[in-house]
Amino acid sequence: MKSKLISIGDEILIGQVINTNAAFIGERLFSIGIPVEKSIVIGDEEKIFLSELQESFENYDVTIITGGLGPTHDDITKQVLVKYFNDKLISDEKVLNHVKNIFKSRNLIMPAVNEDQALVPGMSKVIWNANGTAPGIWIEKESKIFIALPGVPHEMNAMIENEILPELKKRFSKKNSVYLQKTLLTTGLGESTLSERLGNIKEIIGENKLAFLPSTAGVRLRINVIGKNESDASDILSGIEKKIRTRAGDYIYGEENDTLEKIIGQILTERKQTLSVAESCTGGKISSRIVGIPGSSNYYVGGACVYSDKEKFELLGVNRETINKFGAVSMQTAVEMAEGIRKLMGTDYSLSTTGVAGPGGGTAEKPVGLVWIGFSQKVKSYAKEFLFGNNREININRTSERALEILRRELLNIEIKF
Amino acid sequence: MKSKLISIGDEILIGQVINTNAAFIGERLFSIGIPVEKSIVIGDEEKIFLSELQESFENYDVTIITGGLGPTHDDITKQVLVKYFNDKLISDEKVLNHVKNIFKSRNLIMPAVNEDQALVPGMSKVIWNANGTAPGIWIEKESKIFIALPGVPHEMNAMIENEILPELKKRFSKKNSVYLQKTLLTTGLGESTLSERLGNIKEIIGENKLAFLPSTAGVRLRINVIGKNESDASDILSGIEKKIRTRAGDYIYGEENDTLEKIIGQILTERKQTLSVAESCTGGKISSRIVGIPGSSNYYVGGACVYSDKEKFELLGVNRETINKFGAVSMQTAVEMAEGIRKLMGTDYSLSTTGVAGPGGGTAEKPVGLVWIGFSQKVKSYAKEFLFGNNREININRTSERALEILRRELLNIEIKF
Repeated sequence: MKSKLISIGDEILIGQVINTNAAFIGERLFSIGIPVEKSIVIGDEEKIFLSELQESFENYDVTIITGGLGPTHDDITKQVLVKYFNDKLISDEKVLNHVKNIFKSRNLIMPAVNEDQALVPGMSKVIWNANGTAPGIWIEKESKIFIALPGVPHEMNAMIENEILPELKKRFSKKNSVYLQKTLLTTGLGESTLSERLGNIKEIIGENKLAFLPSTAGVRLRINVIGKNESDASDILSGIEKKIRTRAGDYIYGEENDTLEKIIGQILTERKQTLSVAESCTGGKISSRIVGIPGSSNYYVGGACVYSDKEKFELLGVNRETINKFGAVSMQTAVEMAEGIRKLMGTDYSLSTTGVAGPGGGTAEKPVGLVWIGFSQKVKSYAKEFLFGNNREININRTSERALEILRRELLNIEIKF
Repeated sequence: MKSKLISIGDEILIGQVINTNAAFIGERLFSIGIPVEKSIVIGDEEKIFLSELQESFENYDVTIITGGLGPTHDDITKQVLVKYFNDKLISDEKVLNHVKNIFKSRNLIMPAVNEDQALVPGMSKVIWNANGTAPGIWIEKESKIFIALPGVPHEMNAMIENEILPELKKRFSKKNSVYLQKTLLTTGLGESTLSERLGNIKEIIGENKLAFLPSTAGVRLRINVIGKNESDASDILSGIEKKIRTRAGDYIYGEENDTLEKIIGQILTERKQTLSVAESCTGGKISSRIVGIPGSSNYYVGGACVYSDKEKFELLGVNRETINKFGAVSMQTAVEMAEGIRKLMGTDYSLSTTGVAGPGGGTAEKPVGLVWIGFSQKVKSYAKEFLFGNNREININRTSERALEILRRELLNIEIKF
């Protein structure tokens, strides 16, 4: 089973609108084992649209079209469909009443152009749009399925969930294959180092798929498997996961939509322990990530950001002498910042950052990208040195990521190897 | 001039990653008059990739490919290109040194697989990637241009801006029509209220284009015009801009990639004034936005984030009695926070936030979404009340946006009308 998406809209082509519809439909179709093999975006050009319909007819079982169903002049989807299938538009009474009711319920007079919303190709089945005026269209020819949906996300989403997926599932449930997917989140290793660590990928995944998805936060490993049935697929998946965890488990901090701050929050909440943060070069980034997690008030007491005046480091309990002797960007300052904020806030753990975020401010001895991350708990305090590079935004993101990973490893007693 | 985009990546097809790259490139190509006519996404399937290259060759002047240039097994772009063009991969010494230096500068050992990053098709010109290890590739055959770029957004974006656009502009400058684009950034009004305020759009733009692009930060107004030549296009554009500014100028805080924190930074730097921030419900978000701006150490002294224990508000100079009498989320606390941090940090201005970010913690009297934003300078201090809704992330973003906008309006003596 293979599917194709056609998104209609100039606004997508010129980058005015990001194509979140394609991501949504892609994810939903994948989940029922009809992966999207090709996703295209085109404008309201009849010729290209027609040739894409022909390409779909030749190569794909299911084609889903979004957009171009509205009431204005540049909405061409229905016209192109009847042309391609040599059909005619007819008015659907049920849809017409629905459209009239929508305007009535909002106390609006219906512009005449909206009567056209009820026009659908004669050969099509109407897909109910509970949330808007444009009906969806389902056309079948020689066992090829063409589905046209409005481009308004919340209308389209509901139609996919409530009308399309159940019907497609019913049709293709004869198929034996079950698709499963899992994403493991790693941090602390680059894409190539992680790949090297995993060794022979073929040996791990066999005929299945493993994707490396890098970001500044780390590399996500996405496993995709196909099994004969649910339990077969599940066995294959857990076998692959086990092999990956054996080889790179230390670097895996979570799954799917986890974040370091979420994992840390779960541990601290469970243990009823508390955290504080003193930030210089990250300027509140770590604090705002922690506070982004619902319930963080259970373990996060607060933080301080000391940014420009070195003298202000005193507020965190850093000795003025330390700053004068070693500088604001130094191991000693990072350690005193961490200890200072921990005592000030009365928390079990604390983190600190001080560095040269760039682009200015670097020296030969302390170049842009140099960062010290401090950690403190009652029994020990220390700081680690990093060198991240020239990009300010990336420096700040990497520093916050490493700092949170240091805390996670400390909480779980995992050796810190970066 | 017509262009086509090919994005390579299973992760896009199955909806794990939203295709922001296509939006970025589409917007940039449109701005120089080479609009994207078709944008497609495919996986790492050689056969489909080859047939898309053929379709590009037959129909498009410029084809831009993103993704599939990394060092791992699922990166197939270079292999497919040499196959299609009947070429061979050769090692580029300059790129190899660049890759080695990147690893060296981060004190990392380079895995052997990264040597392959320096392989490029023999017929290609290398496009310099200042921010990463994968070089871009520029191939020309029979005046058709094929460009392959890495999929990592910040690497790709810089290559488009600094390498690709200038070169494409040079090639195609013979064309008569000049495309110009400008984006005005507004905050404080919703899409429909802003539209109402602007009145008859046709009257403002004539045959040109005006797009409303809403986000949590505010609505961007993007103007696109076509002129007979540079000065004609420029005249049309400035005429439209003037009309928009006359009707909604108070709500426009910047242009293009400006941010409130950048604008504020420019003003404070120029005036040699300073700022501090005390955050509760935003937890460091405002501080991290300010610190995200290069040079912020010239005016940003620091901030405090007091999150869970009410007692800790004392650190900011808030009276314990104020908290006990009015609560942590109150006008009085917001004002005392702002005054406290301003005095503690010795700054000219300060902002504060305290609120119920949600999803928990709301009461009938103080529901989720209730926020007080405080402002303080020597001559006055006050706080304003907002009610933002149920979503924690949106609450935090909106609060930080409104707080920075209050500061901007105070700095410029613009009445605060929200």
